[in-house]
Amino acid sequence: MDFTGLSAFALTPLLDDRLDEAAYITIIEKLRAAGVDSIGALGSTGCYPYFSRSERASVLRLATEYSGAVPVIAGIGALRTRDVLWLAEDAQKAGVSAVLLAPVSYHPLTEDEVFDLFATVTRELSVPLCIYNNPNATHFNFSDELFARIAQLPNIGSIKIPPLAAELAPERVSALRAQIPAEIRLGISGDGTAVEALNAGCSVWYSVFGGLFPQAALAISRAAMAGDIVQARQHTAALQPLWDLFKRYGGSLRVIATAAELLGVVKAPCLPAPLQTLQGNARREVAQVIEQLRLTV
Amino acid sequence: MDFTGLSAFALTPLLDDRLDEAAYITIIEKLRAAGVDSIGALGSTGCYPYFSRSERASVLRLATEYSGAVPVIAGIGALRTRDVLWLAEDAQKAGVSAVLLAPVSYHPLTEDEVFDLFATVTRELSVPLCIYNNPNATHFNFSDELFARIAQLPNIGSIKIPPLAAELAPERVSALRAQIPAEIRLGISGDGTAVEALNAGCSVWYSVFGGLFPQAALAISRAAMAGDIVQARQHTAALQPLWDLFKRYGGSLRVIATAAELLGVVKAPCLPAPLQTLQGNARREVAQVIEQLRLTV
Repeated sequence: MDFTGLSAFALTPLLDDRLDEAAYITIIEKLRAAGVDSIGALGSTGCYPYFSRSERASVLRLATEYSGAVPVIAGIGALRTRDVLWLAEDAQKAGVSAVLLAPVSYHPLTEDEVFDLFATVTRELSVPLCIYNNPNATHFNFSDELFARIAQLPNIGSIKIPPLAAELAPERVSALRAQIPAEIRLGISGDGTAVEALNAGCSVWYSVFGGLFPQAALAISRAAMAGDIVQARQHTAALQPLWDLFKRYGGSLRVIATAAELLGVVKAPCLPAPLQTLQGNARREVAQVIEQLRLTV
Repeated sequence: MDFTGLSAFALTPLLDDRLDEAAYITIIEKLRAAGVDSIGALGSTGCYPYFSRSERASVLRLATEYSGAVPVIAGIGALRTRDVLWLAEDAQKAGVSAVLLAPVSYHPLTEDEVFDLFATVTRELSVPLCIYNNPNATHFNFSDELFARIAQLPNIGSIKIPPLAAELAPERVSALRAQIPAEIRLGISGDGTAVEALNAGCSVWYSVFGGLFPQAALAISRAAMAGDIVQARQHTAALQPLWDLFKRYGGSLRVIATAAELLGVVKAPCLPAPLQTLQGNARREVAQVIEQLRLTV
């Protein structure tokens, strides 16, 4: 698969603490119909480490069944290497086009431990792997040297890097780009500043926003991929009230999950406890921003 | 059960990536024979979040079967509330005397989410619960206000706090002590400075060192519990080369697991991959310190 354009990361909604299959199918079908370039199933937005192995297999079977020709990238991260290997096997059996692996930690990991994890897993793969750096959740941060070491392993297709402040994106992306083989695509996370990283050399936008609002995200990604940075920036700037909510409420997950509940895409509460969607004033703010920006799914 | 004295936290050794039952039984029997006040099964040292539900049930059955009259405290932490409830049920079925719960996180948790987790779990318990604050691994740090709120819930027996620098222990322990009902025991983690917290009002030492070297740990805890702070400090100071290794190698886990391998208590590699015991020079340093301090199990 090509790691380019908009990779839309879907929620994994619950109903009575079990996978809400109907709601998940609806989300995947909307992403397919909108024409996203790929679908991220069981990413951080999809709360992958909160689900059991069998739940994760069910989610991936639904994702590949309802995504049509759109490739599915599946999160296979877990605390234990043994479990990551099992999840990689399950994901491939479900027919995903790529896997996404973050070094989930409880005891802090060393660089050698993370390298060995990727060496062990890539050896068993027949689909490309995206190295997932999400220090805010895994509490492990890749050095560029470690990225470069892992990039030498077989089956590495992409690197997903954390959000970059707009003014830092050009230097950071070109510095990393220079250390990684050209065939490995860099992808940017973080929605409010993604356009700057795309403009600076990232090939793919791994987007939480795009997982719920694919049309609005495609307007940004298509302009950026076509080199129309002015238009891409305008579309992004118009959504500033939403990016402000992401900042205020500790990231995109709770805001997007709350928006999905408010819009009726999923039932409340859609997140696995102890995680909760926003309530009270925060919830009202999300509702106001949805209305103000005329966001629809 | 009483949360007092030495609570010895055992490794959960692997052999070919599966639970090494024989080695685990040996560890538990040694702790029982040494006369520790309680045994911590599947604490952080026992790598609880790396094991499946059925593995964890097996570990707890062995711990309670071979611990004799020594009470077992079982770690029941997991990312998802549903799983914590299942693990609490399994632990109680296995006959543990108390459970230990840390708010394990991937997406950062809010205080309300953590409160609701403890409210949900304590409602289902028939044994006391120890609130486990381990911000280095869970990336959630309890405020004193949250400790006080949770302390109002039923079945709270103890609070396990992170290591304290010797000079900060008196003020910190008395500040927390003042906010928590007297019947809830404070327990200190961190081996090299535990004696200061015990002297300042902690009732129990949740010890990694004691999980492998119970006799040497009992010499410290018995002196401290008897109010002989001078002797407790002397015993602690004599082990300084080991505490230095804990600092140098990112905590106690890898050092203690390496020591257990070197002493033949467990087979190498005993930790669940991607975690690794120390190799090369670091391993030789552990061997030297064991010899220098004449540490035996």
